[in-house]
Amino acid sequence: MNRRTVMAGAVAAGAAGVMARAAEPETPGIAFAFEAYVTIGAAETPGPTPFGGRNRIPITGGHFEGPAIKGKVLPGGADWQLVRSDGAVTLEADYMIQADDGTLIHVHNHAVVSGKPGTPDYYLRCAPVFEAPIGKHDWLNKALFVGTVTVEPKGDAVRVRVYKVT
Amino acid sequence: MNRRTVMAGAVAAGAAGVMARAAEPETPGIAFAFEAYVTIGAAETPGPTPFGGRNRIPITGGHFEGPAIKGKVLPGGADWQLVRSDGAVTLEADYMIQADDGTLIHVHNHAVVSGKPGTPDYYLRCAPVFEAPIGKHDWLNKALFVGTVTVEPKGDAVRVRVYKVT
Amino acid sequence: MNRRTVMAGAVAAGAAGVMARAAEPETPGIAFAFEAYVTIGAAETPGPTPFGGRNRIPITGGHFEGPAIKGKVLPGGADWQLVRSDGAVTLEADYMIQADDGTLIHVHNHAVVSGKPGTPDYYLRCAPVFEAPIGKHDWLNKALFVGTVTVEPKGDAVRVRVYKVT
Amino acid sequence: MNRRTVMAGAVAAGAAGVMARAAEPETPGIAFAFEAYVTIGAAETPGPTPFGGRNRIPITGGHFEGPAIKGKVLPGGADWQLVRSDGAVTLEADYMIQADDGTLIHVHNHAVVSGKPGTPDYYLRCAPVFEAPIGKHDWLNKALFVGTVTVEPKGDAVRVRVYKVT
Repeated sequence: MNRRTVMAGAVAAGAAGVMARAAEPETPGIAFAFEAYVTIGAAETPGPTPFGGRNRIPITGGHFEGPAIKGKVLPGGADWQLVRSDGAVTLEADYMIQADDGTLIHVHNHAVVSGKPGTPDYYLRCAPVFEAPIGKHDWLNKALFVGTVTVEPKGDAVRVRVYKVT
Repeated sequence: MNRRTVMAGAVAAGAAGVMARAAEPETPGIAFAFEAYVTIGAAETPGPTPFGGRNRIPITGGHFEGPAIKGKVLPGGADWQLVRSDGAVTLEADYMIQADDGTLIHVHNHAVVSGKPGTPDYYLRCAPVFEAPIGKHDWLNKALFVGTVTVEPKGDAVRVRVYKVT
Repeated sequence: MNRRTVMAGAVAAGAAGVMARAAEPETPGIAFAFEAYVTIGAAETPGPTPFGGRNRIPITGGHFEGPAIKGKVLPGGADWQLVRSDGAVTLEADYMIQADDGTLIHVHNHAVVSGKPGTPDYYLRCAPVFEAPIGKHDWLNKALFVGTVTVEPKGDAVRVRVYKVT
Repeated sequence: MNRRTVMAGAVAAGAAGVMARAAEPETPGIAFAFEAYVTIGAAETPGPTPFGGRNRIPITGGHFEGPAIKGKVLPGGADWQLVRSDGAVTLEADYMIQADDGTLIHVHNHAVVSGKPGTPDYYLRCAPVFEAPIGKHDWLNKALFVGTVTVEPKGDAVRVRVYKVT
């Protein structure tokens, strides 16, 4: 048994049942999961730190709805923003949502904003990671998601559209 | 000036130039960025820890190519896998790639694997985050990416197709 | 110039000015930095997820004081707890504090709890990481810290004593 | 039952068995756990990114020994360094060690370096987090650790002294 065989075996053992050896993966697509309306509070702005500019935007409530799940956004979360030296901004939002059957689901939403609003270069996409308890909503744990974020006209809420990466 | 106005102003200040107040975001799409062929070593398998099952797959080399960038995968990275209590697996791969102009780019690739290989439920998608130096390849810092991962037949490499979330 | 010299040079360049080549490091010690009284809300308990048991404890306010800094704890933070399969608990608290000169400081406090309360095996220590803006309080960015956490008798607050690792 | 009682109950339930309501915590101390000699390769230096200056130092091997555990450092890890705008450096080293009974243990070592080498302001302390499989060495999962790091004279290795926070 040569080294390659051992390695392949070790990978098969190590990653057992994990990764298929498919000939060709399909091109990914996206499928709408839900839309969230998230109310936000006044920014807390520490100013420049050794890592960049910082803003913290409180997440104060809201609601969400899609074909397979709907519910409310719980107050007490926050979006911790880093204004980088290239002018782009990395967002890390951390909050809880609650489905209408009472299930509590943790959301960690990483986003990147770049380019100038109103120009073709403007870019804002997010990649929320969910942690739901085992049960009805645990499909949220078993896939990746991406989404869009827009600020509502009054600046007191954002609208997040979440899509499953298929 | 009422509270809502203050809040909107604070958000505008706090998130200044960050998020557009667009009427309607376009539905996200994906655009092919590059494909990587990543060679892997024998799994290191600590066994069950208080967080779940663990495997570490060494990343030993490879190459990548797309319309706007190509180069090689550097040895010395690793994929730190968590086999969760629901049987799904969370992957966190951390490694460096080098474009053919010499630019070093850090890759952190988060992936989720769920379902049984060979069944319609099987799912494996990744969301690589890149950190490139300021310059020609820094478009990798300014967008989100998703991708597919397949293991090569001999089990000694994986193929990763990376798409920009547009 | 042999390989070792090249490596040493590269390290010197790469980690330039970073790490001293001291003959012998001193044994670390700890020095009291401040004590915080942090009020907490009712736990949100999603229940078992694929990662373990989860609790989220809202952080609702409080105050802190030490020889070089004092101020208040801002509402809107949370402690995201993971009850692990070994019965120990990992805490990740994320919140803001504000010094009495108005400076906003981000706190990420990682803690481990193990053993049974009331027994000699009981263990609870934390390692808060601070991010302060450049200025008077930025010594918090330039060192590591550890601490103790105790729950107040009524269960509505915790007391955190923070020490600089010297 | 008033709100405070409910909150206390919820905390007791949510953080059940987690945090003792001790009258007074003892002041933390440190206890020597082990010393590691970690060999390092030539730095990979991407240069300035939107997050700061970056270096990646390969971890290529080594050994460690203490009163309760000894073994070797596995090749294939790395130390991902961020040179911050304040001149301090944040290190995130990720690697595996193996005890002499074969047990594989994951190490994530966060460190801060500040001040100028050779001056009284110089500071370098680390806070390694271990993930060991359930068993003989799992005391590493149940406590926090801090340590010192020094570069060996030839620049081809670092010496890390690890202490349990008691």
